[in-house]
Amino acid sequence: MLFITQNTFNENFKNSGMISGGLYTDMYELTMAQGYLIMGKQDETASFDYFFRMNPYHGGFTVFAGLWNLLEALENFSYSPEDLEYLRSRGFRNEFLSFLTDFRFSGTIYSVKEGEIVFPNEPVLRAEGTLIETQLIESIVLNYLNFQSLIATKAARIRRVAGDRIFADFGLRRAQGWGSLHASRASVIGGADATSHVLAGKEYGLEITGTQAHSWIQSFDDELTAFRKFTELYPDGAVLLVDTYDTLQNGLPNVITVAKELEARGHRIGGIRLDSGDLAYLSKKARRMLDDAGLGYVKIIASNQLDEYVIRSLNIQEAPIDGFGIGTRMITGMPDAALDGVYKLSVAAGSPRLKISDNIEKVTLPGAKTIMRLVGNDDKFAGDGIILTNENKPDRIYHPLDPRKYTDTGKYETEDLLEKVMEKGKIVIPFRSPAEIGKYVKERMSRLPAEHQRFEYPHIYKVGLSGKLKNLRNDLVNGHRNNNP
Amino acid sequence: MLFITQNTFNENFKNSGMISGGLYTDMYELTMAQGYLIMGKQDETASFDYFFRMNPYHGGFTVFAGLWNLLEALENFSYSPEDLEYLRSRGFRNEFLSFLTDFRFSGTIYSVKEGEIVFPNEPVLRAEGTLIETQLIESIVLNYLNFQSLIATKAARIRRVAGDRIFADFGLRRAQGWGSLHASRASVIGGADATSHVLAGKEYGLEITGTQAHSWIQSFDDELTAFRKFTELYPDGAVLLVDTYDTLQNGLPNVITVAKELEARGHRIGGIRLDSGDLAYLSKKARRMLDDAGLGYVKIIASNQLDEYVIRSLNIQEAPIDGFGIGTRMITGMPDAALDGVYKLSVAAGSPRLKISDNIEKVTLPGAKTIMRLVGNDDKFAGDGIILTNENKPDRIYHPLDPRKYTDTGKYETEDLLEKVMEKGKIVIPFRSPAEIGKYVKERMSRLPAEHQRFEYPHIYKVGLSGKLKNLRNDLVNGHRNNNP
Repeated sequence: MLFITQNTFNENFKNSGMISGGLYTDMYELTMAQGYLIMGKQDETASFDYFFRMNPYHGGFTVFAGLWNLLEALENFSYSPEDLEYLRSRGFRNEFLSFLTDFRFSGTIYSVKEGEIVFPNEPVLRAEGTLIETQLIESIVLNYLNFQSLIATKAARIRRVAGDRIFADFGLRRAQGWGSLHASRASVIGGADATSHVLAGKEYGLEITGTQAHSWIQSFDDELTAFRKFTELYPDGAVLLVDTYDTLQNGLPNVITVAKELEARGHRIGGIRLDSGDLAYLSKKARRMLDDAGLGYVKIIASNQLDEYVIRSLNIQEAPIDGFGIGTRMITGMPDAALDGVYKLSVAAGSPRLKISDNIEKVTLPGAKTIMRLVGNDDKFAGDGIILTNENKPDRIYHPLDPRKYTDTGKYETEDLLEKVMEKGKIVIPFRSPAEIGKYVKERMSRLPAEHQRFEYPHIYKVGLSGKLKNLRNDLVNGHRNNNP
Repeated sequence: MLFITQNTFNENFKNSGMISGGLYTDMYELTMAQGYLIMGKQDETASFDYFFRMNPYHGGFTVFAGLWNLLEALENFSYSPEDLEYLRSRGFRNEFLSFLTDFRFSGTIYSVKEGEIVFPNEPVLRAEGTLIETQLIESIVLNYLNFQSLIATKAARIRRVAGDRIFADFGLRRAQGWGSLHASRASVIGGADATSHVLAGKEYGLEITGTQAHSWIQSFDDELTAFRKFTELYPDGAVLLVDTYDTLQNGLPNVITVAKELEARGHRIGGIRLDSGDLAYLSKKARRMLDDAGLGYVKIIASNQLDEYVIRSLNIQEAPIDGFGIGTRMITGMPDAALDGVYKLSVAAGSPRLKISDNIEKVTLPGAKTIMRLVGNDDKFAGDGIILTNENKPDRIYHPLDPRKYTDTGKYETEDLLEKVMEKGKIVIPFRSPAEIGKYVKERMSRLPAEHQRFEYPHIYKVGLSGKLKNLRNDLVNGHRNNNP
């Protein structure tokens, strides 16, 4: 794997000279880094913020994910001799290549916890270090965090409608290439119970699941034999796929026959899987047939183009479905396909920096910042304030654009959401498995008021600025205007 | 990388025990394979077809891509001791684990050429071998071919509107995790000239490109200094980003100043990049300012949420843009995110097989098949026929569902699109670089009538069946009906 997780593997990477994280980047990062170096800016420090501008899926929240993989990649962010040879062939200069030879990311990262519920424009991760090193990691920060956050958010939306029922990621075949690996991990963080993706299961410690496809059935002369043979091998808990020929005419009667034969031998199948047709109609018919045959314990699993909207519709129709296999629409984050996260310079050479835009809402926030979450008496999240790291808890949080709107913070408990996760290039937080992070997501989601969770026109969660930050931004904007009248 | 291309690297993988392709699969493939083995089906042979049901993007064609990576992965499809240990921990049985210990894919693959223009329901790839081995590769076949074909098709659509202008993949930051690597490769196959993704460039031999981001500009006290410093380092061909503060008020005047200073020293910048605002408006204004300053050679590059529709709109508005950087919408294949390719059993134990559906158009095609392309006198593609491998060129190709519709083949030249690409687990075709495959795409696209290429309601390309295949399918369907009245 590209950036393997276990430390024992790092040496293999180095020795083989195959892959190191340093080239997993856009070329302009290297062009700029070379420029910084040759100009003598190698000791200049900088701070960059990672943030996004819109929640995916027109939703009201985002589940932050990808942090652990990112941190591990940063610990291994280096250039092999082969990498350097390649860069030389692309015209990079000796001075820069020498610099890269022993390069390691030695910066410090502050971040919200993986699994935190976050919102647009918040600096959810901050990278501090030299200008060169914080620049070089831009592409990998964006690639890792944008994607896993997109998928974890989708999975959390699906969990919301799946309730306590099982749902599993079945997306490998439709995933975007090797993106499948991060995607399966993120789906478990967001709420999936398991994945069909064996390698993702092995690498990230995810539960894996899967029984049979149509080809099993087709490879026998008839469906009944296929079911019999399968349950001979897997006499307990098998999930039989019932739509190869005809779900109600063939699949269900054959399942019932086989289940009864198994019962006589003291075994039970686990369930059936519906993979085509109208799932509401078929699940009701199937449930009735199974119950009438005394097979109330046989669960009904559904797959085929599912997402949070289809499951909600099935809920409304009271379809008796006990579990879901979710493929394309979760693994690719349809219909959005990408979170629009960016990574923007906020401090350089000790001074706060911003990028101006014709639109005030696209002006970036200068300075080193953190997020203060306001928690109400009911333990629910009431809003977030973006504040400077060098200020105390402010009394008031202002609307980012409309100075007449503000929230007084006195009546809320507060949490500082950013914590130091990497120091001088080393991870300083404990490892948590995706399932553990998933529990954290569940706990945090339970504290997000329902109006921010709904799918249609969710209530916008308040994210404001401290007065000091607002003034700093406005002063810098005005300064630029005065310099460029 | 997960499945590295160069043979010299294979040993490293084996020795390190890190990753081998065998676990890059859905769990049910392994569950079924274990079942086939334990039931004594290990010598049974099978044939599977890869095909998709809908062109992406509501379009009229698909560019087939991902083949070379797939074949290399299949050459390295094996199970390391660590993989086997993992499978043991998941309950797989000793007999099966022993079988996997020395497992290699030793089947034969027939495929259309990578870069071929293909259409729904055609068996574009056929895998033959033992039932077990052809089953085990299902997930990787689908993951690799679905995704690269999706992206190559998107890139071909963009090439269509970009004409001879340069366009580059800038998508790494928004790509779906490590899917970025296959995506950048596929974008070059489809028509991109270059990518910003350095690792993809190195691994797949793609042109890489990139100069500067906003952070370069922001890291200096003012934009003019930032441009001067950059062009000191890169005095020829630099592309300067002009929208950090204000494109027309600051960016362009500063570019002109710097370009003139450089000219005095005998150098020339390459261009400017517009990354926000209205690209039609700004490019016209910028072109005028540059031309008025005698800088007609300075090219205008545009980026920011581009796709084939935006570029077409810019063309209609005669925006003077010389090149494009394409990010999110190409690298993720928006708005589709996935090609719906499937891999279905067509022969088992020497007999043709199919999957029946309530919808006749979803019934799969039985038997070992190939694709016969009809080529008109004008050298254009006139339609494809799906035929059995053991029949001669049929005189007539029938509509797959409506027997009254057919095409007589006599007046056409024909091409057999499937060729043997892997024999007994070894690649038997020569390597072609993505750029070479891209040339093939261009040549083939030039022979696809324009009405199939248009974006809105494209004319549907004819894909029919030989009479023998049609009869085989119908006989098998009727046979199942008679067995299950």
